[in-house]
Amino acid sequence: MLSSEYTKPIPKPREDCAGFNTTSSVGNEPGSFTSNGSMIVVSNRLPFVLKRNETTGQLERKASAGGLVTAVAPVVINGNGVWVGWPGMHMENPNEPIPESDPNDRTPTAGLLSRKVVAVHVEPAIFDSYYNGCCNGTFWPLFHSMPDRATFIAEHWRAYTTVNEEFAAKTVGALELIHKEQEGQTNGTPLVWIHDYHLMLAANWIRQAADEKNLRLKLGFFLHIPFPPWDIFRLFPWADEILQGMLGCDMVGFHIQDYCLNFVDCCQRCLGCRVDRKNLLVEHGGRTVRVRPLPIGIPFDRFVSLAESAPRVMLTNQKIVLGVDRLDYTKGLVHRLKAFEMLLEKHPEHREQVTMLQIAVPSRTDVREYQDLKLEMDQLIGCINGRFTTPNWSPIRYIYGCVSQDELAAFYRDAAVALVTPLRDGMNLVAKEFVACQINNPPGVLIVSPFAGAGEMMHEALICNPYEIDEAAEVIHRALTMPEDERTLRMNHLRRRERIYDVNYWMKSFLQVMGSLEERDSVGATTMQPVTMDDFDDYLSKSPRYIGDNHKLALLLDYDGTLAPIATHPDLAILPLETKNVLQRLSNMSDVYIAIISGRNVNNVKSMVGIDGITYAGNHGLEILHPDGSKFVHPMPAEFEDKVAGLMQALQDQLCKDGAWVENKGALLTFHYRETPMEGRPEMVEQAKKLIEETGFKACAAHCALEAKPPVEWNKGRASIYILRTAFGLDWSERIRIIYAGDDVTDEDAMKALKGMAATFRVASSHIIRTSAERRLPSTDSVLTMLKWVERHLSRRKPRQNSEKSTRFRRSSGGITMEMSFPQQSFKQTLES
Amino acid sequence: MLSSEYTKPIPKPREDCAGFNTTSSVGNEPGSFTSNGSMIVVSNRLPFVLKRNETTGQLERKASAGGLVTAVAPVVINGNGVWVGWPGMHMENPNEPIPESDPNDRTPTAGLLSRKVVAVHVEPAIFDSYYNGCCNGTFWPLFHSMPDRATFIAEHWRAYTTVNEEFAAKTVGALELIHKEQEGQTNGTPLVWIHDYHLMLAANWIRQAADEKNLRLKLGFFLHIPFPPWDIFRLFPWADEILQGMLGCDMVGFHIQDYCLNFVDCCQRCLGCRVDRKNLLVEHGGRTVRVRPLPIGIPFDRFVSLAESAPRVMLTNQKIVLGVDRLDYTKGLVHRLKAFEMLLEKHPEHREQVTMLQIAVPSRTDVREYQDLKLEMDQLIGCINGRFTTPNWSPIRYIYGCVSQDELAAFYRDAAVALVTPLRDGMNLVAKEFVACQINNPPGVLIVSPFAGAGEMMHEALICNPYEIDEAAEVIHRALTMPEDERTLRMNHLRRRERIYDVNYWMKSFLQVMGSLEERDSVGATTMQPVTMDDFDDYLSKSPRYIGDNHKLALLLDYDGTLAPIATHPDLAILPLETKNVLQRLSNMSDVYIAIISGRNVNNVKSMVGIDGITYAGNHGLEILHPDGSKFVHPMPAEFEDKVAGLMQALQDQLCKDGAWVENKGALLTFHYRETPMEGRPEMVEQAKKLIEETGFKACAAHCALEAKPPVEWNKGRASIYILRTAFGLDWSERIRIIYAGDDVTDEDAMKALKGMAATFRVASSHIIRTSAERRLPSTDSVLTMLKWVERHLSRRKPRQNSEKSTRFRRSSGGITMEMSFPQQSFKQTLES
Repeated sequence: MLSSEYTKPIPKPREDCAGFNTTSSVGNEPGSFTSNGSMIVVSNRLPFVLKRNETTGQLERKASAGGLVTAVAPVVINGNGVWVGWPGMHMENPNEPIPESDPNDRTPTAGLLSRKVVAVHVEPAIFDSYYNGCCNGTFWPLFHSMPDRATFIAEHWRAYTTVNEEFAAKTVGALELIHKEQEGQTNGTPLVWIHDYHLMLAANWIRQAADEKNLRLKLGFFLHIPFPPWDIFRLFPWADEILQGMLGCDMVGFHIQDYCLNFVDCCQRCLGCRVDRKNLLVEHGGRTVRVRPLPIGIPFDRFVSLAESAPRVMLTNQKIVLGVDRLDYTKGLVHRLKAFEMLLEKHPEHREQVTMLQIAVPSRTDVREYQDLKLEMDQLIGCINGRFTTPNWSPIRYIYGCVSQDELAAFYRDAAVALVTPLRDGMNLVAKEFVACQINNPPGVLIVSPFAGAGEMMHEALICNPYEIDEAAEVIHRALTMPEDERTLRMNHLRRRERIYDVNYWMKSFLQVMGSLEERDSVGATTMQPVTMDDFDDYLSKSPRYIGDNHKLALLLDYDGTLAPIATHPDLAILPLETKNVLQRLSNMSDVYIAIISGRNVNNVKSMVGIDGITYAGNHGLEILHPDGSKFVHPMPAEFEDKVAGLMQALQDQLCKDGAWVENKGALLTFHYRETPMEGRPEMVEQAKKLIEETGFKACAAHCALEAKPPVEWNKGRASIYILRTAFGLDWSERIRIIYAGDDVTDEDAMKALKGMAATFRVASSHIIRTSAERRLPSTDSVLTMLKWVERHLSRRKPRQNSEKSTRFRRSSGGITMEMSFPQQSFKQTLES
Repeated sequence: MLSSEYTKPIPKPREDCAGFNTTSSVGNEPGSFTSNGSMIVVSNRLPFVLKRNETTGQLERKASAGGLVTAVAPVVINGNGVWVGWPGMHMENPNEPIPESDPNDRTPTAGLLSRKVVAVHVEPAIFDSYYNGCCNGTFWPLFHSMPDRATFIAEHWRAYTTVNEEFAAKTVGALELIHKEQEGQTNGTPLVWIHDYHLMLAANWIRQAADEKNLRLKLGFFLHIPFPPWDIFRLFPWADEILQGMLGCDMVGFHIQDYCLNFVDCCQRCLGCRVDRKNLLVEHGGRTVRVRPLPIGIPFDRFVSLAESAPRVMLTNQKIVLGVDRLDYTKGLVHRLKAFEMLLEKHPEHREQVTMLQIAVPSRTDVREYQDLKLEMDQLIGCINGRFTTPNWSPIRYIYGCVSQDELAAFYRDAAVALVTPLRDGMNLVAKEFVACQINNPPGVLIVSPFAGAGEMMHEALICNPYEIDEAAEVIHRALTMPEDERTLRMNHLRRRERIYDVNYWMKSFLQVMGSLEERDSVGATTMQPVTMDDFDDYLSKSPRYIGDNHKLALLLDYDGTLAPIATHPDLAILPLETKNVLQRLSNMSDVYIAIISGRNVNNVKSMVGIDGITYAGNHGLEILHPDGSKFVHPMPAEFEDKVAGLMQALQDQLCKDGAWVENKGALLTFHYRETPMEGRPEMVEQAKKLIEETGFKACAAHCALEAKPPVEWNKGRASIYILRTAFGLDWSERIRIIYAGDDVTDEDAMKALKGMAATFRVASSHIIRTSAERRLPSTDSVLTMLKWVERHLSRRKPRQNSEKSTRFRRSSGGITMEMSFPQQSFKQTLES
């Protein structure tokens, strides 16, 4: 079902409301913003909504021109840009052309030709799940740190994913067009700017497709609402996907430093990314993502002219205490009314001298929670008015609806006090618009909540915790009685800041940050330092579970993508010489046990690594070759041995074309398609999967490959435990420290099985992955660094007794022979000793 | 009104419930814990509740003996300790003696003689506001990061304060007794251990009283629930008082590192304290407070014996999925039921094979929210059972009530899976008790939420986000089908950890941390480094508002307690020579403007400081002496000039005894009582206040003094602005950087007026203060360090043009003469340039 919010006509739609979207033209020269390349803006809604004219049946544009649109539209119009978004209505025929703007349209989007507009169409039911379910039912309350109000519903999340994919696809289409038009020119790199919590996943798909199609681009994201702290954000079950979605960008922007730090903290704690809190950098998938505070501003000059020309509206001598808000539970309206009531109670001198004017703009009126809030407001206002009203004065005037922008500017200008007291708010532009319109002398006073982004910046306002009703009443009293000199001083400061840091400044700052991305390969404060030995001091030695005492160390390592870089053919995935040398030296240390656990067959992986005296496991652990030469082979149902050949033949006959091929690993087969053309892959994989499963094998996804495994309950996790038990005895887990590193989904089984017992690293160069590993590493290089760290660290240990020094791991054929004595393991010490 | 929770008899009171409070004796030797000195335990409830025997009319003890009580009681009993707490009922006669324990009582508290028990009595209505209002209505949801459920009501907060004061008073009484008994002995320092969110303010009053009465003590606090992140905690209007209350202790303990970091972060961001995140230290009021993770354990061995002896209860062959919880919205019960339903839907193989046993212990049954939750549970369970029940199997067995501890141990032992999936939980002991009772071979599987403290520690459990219903169902499936070897391995690890880190270990850790406090004067990881120049790099130069460019700097400084240490008489408060020298040098720098703003009269403060060429303001700014010798005196209503002498006479005649005296400051009078005996003060102050107000003056509290001010709207804030405007012209605020430092409540007016325009420091050596300052400094020494920092920093500036160098501030008698040119001020740059 669809919410009426964007289907039913609302008498005064939100787009008409000044304060949220105003329609006069900009004062500054938009031309100055044009970036070098073209800009694609991606937002949930287009900068206008489409409506069908009921008499002509034609589609018509209805312009919206908030500050953001005003600042951003010229860049799209003057550059070679495009705006991607939902057109505000569901169209039966998605191919129906977007109309051009009305010739009389003077809004900033008038110049936005229909060829510069890409409308995204989504099934109404899916759009509802996405917009009302996930965006407004989950992210809105969660990101405002009100987790109790949030719902976590898998279906809504799936709809969110679907819609984000659709936005990404449309954006990639636009990007291709721009590249086509630019062909041969050097117009700079196109810039994609994704907006807000509706589209936190799109960046990754855009990046992926652009990489595949070899389209240059720079990707930026801006969140218009707060970003919550980790303790709140982690409640969202798919928190890791959101973060990775956002990290698909080159730059992620928030209003204030606090939100940036929350985001960086989440990346570190949820994804195990390396971060640089000082320079606000996050490393992900081998890239460095910049995180930046970009506090949004308003079209200051436009509000000044509005205030200069707007006629006086309220013909009263009372001082006006003004509130302007969307009727939303984050805005603290009930608290505010109670504070005003308390003011009248405690300071009766204000009765008949002061009137509160509250404008509440209807919002999400079909949602139960919002209806309840309205009822509560209505009742409370009635009650307060009933209590204090005299024949010639009512304390509260309450407008439930929208006002014109002239009216609003007049209210802003003529109010003695503005109350901007949300419980939580990303920025809050009302505070800034009020300040811009305060052109009277002496001016009024702004009261702002510390829980709004504006509260962090507008130091000279009176700061008021909306939850503290008594104190809030005192703050209003203080504002109403503030001496003129203090009011003037504060307002001068506030206005000066907003004049400089207006919405155009914000736009310029964004372009500047994106422009400076060119230098991203230079070392410095904008790029993460490469992984160094020091990083592993943090990861490994600070957690006493792992290294730092005299325990033996077991290193369990995947081969392809972990030790050796991925190559176009397995035979080309050579172990770098330096890695080999470190491994060789480690294998000679008495404290170290090494096992290489690979999807290759065991003899193949052994020959690729080429080090003696260590353990090799092949076929994801189905075959294990011990250092003494003895071999373990997981028993396989006899019938499958025969079937392997048949399946191989079938795969080769039916699917090995365009570069696809089958690798016979003995106990299993791998169907490789990494060299086949992209467009044929989905069907090819589908067919291969079908063939494999028909034969009775399990089809498992691997890196550009599909593996056919016999249906036995065995994987790298079980194999790891088997290897450790065989080498160290039944109570292995109390005797050794373990490090596991791998890059493949098949390594996840081991990471899960060893959770809490091993330090686990997932080598992640791709975009979105879900991992059980504690940490991510960007590349095989960083695995090498880790091995070097281990070597250095172990070399520093105090020499042991001679008898222990000579101890080597041996395994007799009949069972386990352990020749060494282990110290007792001391558990993780969270208590100080 | 009183909640029935602690007045009405509940059929099976919570104290009977095993799992929460068990009653067998301890396995370990309690004697080993006795600390050197005596221990006073302070908790909301005593370790037993009092009930009136309905037939005899006598009071009787009803023992409660949870793990905590079991571990802590022996220390109180064997040492010379005392337990302070509420006795569980309101008594009409508070002097009615506490009965001794029943001779048959074998619980650990049996030996707690009534002379070792201090019962705290509180008015029922106040107790209700405190307990149901503030503790359970505010802190419980807020600290569990569910701010929407929290109410913020000033009256509840006042009740909380009152009750904490009462607990503090009783504790101080007990402390005095112990000191009296110990007289002449060297029994070590008595230890006061305050428990949980009910008593977060008590520590400060205890410390204050102990300081005044010269009673040695060490103060420790432990929070049994989570500590929320700053974004949540800051919503509480009196957040600063809570933090300062807790910081009254020498050590503040939490379950896990995360909570510690949240707390340290709050201290830094809310109070402006200096902190050391690495060593978990907070500096407050000149002391260093240690913050420590002390994860609580259970009486492991007791649960093992229970499990060994408990008879089998459930005679079924189905696998049991067990849940044991207080019926509370933090426990995630509804999510859990839905996950189990999903399991049955997605994995029908478990139907008739698996039964969920949910034990829900009634809690806060008279609170609407809890009633609603129960209704939802009842309905959901009915619905799921209706959907899946077959003739011989119902999926969910639901016990709403308590079970005996034998039964509980049997459930724990025989369950295949335990579901511990709270939405948020400080630690959760059910997870640990389950693990202790898992003595069968092969064992079952523990599933735990990452949002419980236990989830942070029990790595080998399956971790499950309770919000993700689908995934939770999969995790239960994984637990039910986990291979034996993996189950054994995980359970061995879990049991081993809990066996070592049991509740006695927790108790010992606490005593160890408290014991090591002796060394708190040594420099090292347990004491904050003294304030150094580097601290001001952070405070001052990183914020471009203040210093870091070529702006002039105005230093506005209070005298007593800021520049000069407080002394017993104002004449003895000498400016330290080093401070004087730095000020002298600064006054010679062309970039620096200095004003000393004091409560003394202006000539007196000038003679105390003794530096020429700077501005002095006396009587809180009523008199201002400019560097050129011209003087501003705030006009005072003529009638008050005459009244001053009369008031002075009256104060001297009626109240100047026992060391009290009156200082005549010209425009105002100060009544000093710092040398009078403590006990007489409240009455003396009351009388002085009355005299002052009767004469028409305002009575204002100062440091151990009361000031009589003429009723003019003038204070250090207005005076500061006047001084700056006079020196720098009307647009002073755009031309200069300002630092304000003061230690007095009267300085708060200036800190408020300059908010956002100045770097403000409050010198705070006392305990609880509310301040508008950005930062706190521990002492006058740190103000000196700040001045040195300013000197060093300004000396490094590039030399200016000669013409500017010679510029000095001058003021002509008729108005303002400015001889210098100022560079334009650049505003705080949150955007990168």
